[in-house]
Amino acid sequence: MKTIGYAAQSAGDTLAPWEFERRDLRPNDVAMEVLYCGICFTDIHQVQDDWGWGIFPMVPGHEIIGRVIDVGEDVSQFKKGDTVAVGCMVDSCLECDQCHHGEEQFCREGMTLTYAGRDRITGETTQGGYSKHLVCREEFVLHIPDGLDLSRAAPLLCAGITTYSPLRHWNIGPGSQVGVIGLGGLGHMAVKLAAGLGADVTVLSRTEDKEADARDLGADGLLVSSDAAAMEAAQSSFDLIIDTIPVKHDLTPYLRLLDVGGGLVLVGQIGPIEEMDSEPVVMGRRCIVGSAIGGIAETQELIDFCAKKNILPECEVINISEVNDALERLKRSDVRYRFVIDMASLAAP
Amino acid sequence: MKTIGYAAQSAGDTLAPWEFERRDLRPNDVAMEVLYCGICFTDIHQVQDDWGWGIFPMVPGHEIIGRVIDVGEDVSQFKKGDTVAVGCMVDSCLECDQCHHGEEQFCREGMTLTYAGRDRITGETTQGGYSKHLVCREEFVLHIPDGLDLSRAAPLLCAGITTYSPLRHWNIGPGSQVGVIGLGGLGHMAVKLAAGLGADVTVLSRTEDKEADARDLGADGLLVSSDAAAMEAAQSSFDLIIDTIPVKHDLTPYLRLLDVGGGLVLVGQIGPIEEMDSEPVVMGRRCIVGSAIGGIAETQELIDFCAKKNILPECEVINISEVNDALERLKRSDVRYRFVIDMASLAAP
Repeated sequence: MKTIGYAAQSAGDTLAPWEFERRDLRPNDVAMEVLYCGICFTDIHQVQDDWGWGIFPMVPGHEIIGRVIDVGEDVSQFKKGDTVAVGCMVDSCLECDQCHHGEEQFCREGMTLTYAGRDRITGETTQGGYSKHLVCREEFVLHIPDGLDLSRAAPLLCAGITTYSPLRHWNIGPGSQVGVIGLGGLGHMAVKLAAGLGADVTVLSRTEDKEADARDLGADGLLVSSDAAAMEAAQSSFDLIIDTIPVKHDLTPYLRLLDVGGGLVLVGQIGPIEEMDSEPVVMGRRCIVGSAIGGIAETQELIDFCAKKNILPECEVINISEVNDALERLKRSDVRYRFVIDMASLAAP
Repeated sequence: MKTIGYAAQSAGDTLAPWEFERRDLRPNDVAMEVLYCGICFTDIHQVQDDWGWGIFPMVPGHEIIGRVIDVGEDVSQFKKGDTVAVGCMVDSCLECDQCHHGEEQFCREGMTLTYAGRDRITGETTQGGYSKHLVCREEFVLHIPDGLDLSRAAPLLCAGITTYSPLRHWNIGPGSQVGVIGLGGLGHMAVKLAAGLGADVTVLSRTEDKEADARDLGADGLLVSSDAAAMEAAQSSFDLIIDTIPVKHDLTPYLRLLDVGGGLVLVGQIGPIEEMDSEPVVMGRRCIVGSAIGGIAETQELIDFCAKKNILPECEVINISEVNDALERLKRSDVRYRFVIDMASLAAP
């Protein structure tokens, strides 16, 4: 199928319209028209080839809402007209222990990324959701329930599941004390989801000017990390802290905020972790742990949870022609809290 | 009660005989003659006041085997003549959530250390097991089952429980893959206990010359951490790695050896943790976690487990007059694997 997307032709290029081919449907494939696509900071890293494994031309985008336009002959779970979603991965082996217990993101053979990945069968480069159409293996397509505001649902596929998965893994619920560091695309979802699960939520911020925003999102309060007395008073008070800061920083002050047995969850690739003190780790069985998106079943659970609870990302909807400006603004954190591209603004080729 | 111990009169002093008073029995106290006392690297740190909170004169020793010589009027679990043990703590509040679920080492009011601590009632300095007699609250005294070789049991009280607790917390058993970094007092117990629990155990060492020792202790093999090919081949193969290295070191190569969801357990106070890479943490939900000794019930479980399985530390038994030499040798790791003082070598005052 001929389609069109916004692509970087080489590392660091601005995005521009690019016609390309989507594969013919395999028996287990679903073809969709893309309705909305969220913009994730990963898209900036990948377009700039910050991680050194970009493949160009590159169509970014892994927070995708679409409508099914065709299905392969063996597809059983989707039909033409269904509203669907695709996140950060489009395939995995589905045969290893990790896939079998629903953690396809940790597939022993490696998940296939939605873009800048290699198709498991043909080896062709995968291309993402800043495009008019997408073709994806049925098992990696999610159902979107009726009633969910489609213009705001896309960020659930990355920002949402990335913060939901650790909250679920740590059994967060009523009575849990959750801290959230950073109030961007991921952080604002962590607040909404933790509050939605019934936890008491505190936003950790260097300054107090985000208190009103934090409360609007559902937080019970704000802890100013530069306030030594407040930090001292809050020692050992959190069961879980979701750390969304995407750059190197000192974890030690946050570790001391954790209760015995508590966890500091890193959800972003921050490269080197700054030197830190082992004392709060050893004297309290505290841990530093990572989390990477979530499995397909858990992503569906998140979508259904958000539909039921009416929890949605705060989005600024843009046209595809504004995408390069949006990427620049995102670099400056100038968005509340997630850009979503309305793909109706991109005409089919 | 008048007694005698080997004490440092001030920070960094060599140990020398010192007569002092043990408190009169409270209703819930057990008095014991000390039979054996292990030497832990903590004793060196404390005598040198490396952590800055030493209290002098200081009688070290927190791996204590004794025989009951008297009990307070309310003591119900011990009687004169019983063989008993005392570890790293001699009191805690016993009323907080941590104490209630058997983790007195994480007591909200702080555990009372066996030495260099402050008695919760009188505030007097606690003194340890390099002494002829000890008085300890009943709830912090352990039972030693018949048949356990008393000359080798003392190190269970610190080196043993410190490595047993994380193995149990992580449900290590048959089929588990456990790595042990460092083959000293703690490391050799980690190997024996993990093997005793049924795990496959690998010792991680910079050189291959420890392979025979590792196998003698019950390990299934040795992984040479300076062998890049072997380290690459071992990626993602361990469920748990017990890291007993007591100084700052790079954790990144070890994190990559952990399977998805695996844990690197720090059991020593290593001060600052060296800067490390977040990638293996995030992309596999791996964690860096600490562990500090274990609770009283878990320590009793360990002692009973070792008695049943005949698992005992490898000890070099010395007389108290050799203690300063032993501390010097321990600084050079010149011991296989733990010094134990035969307290019969110290005459009562």
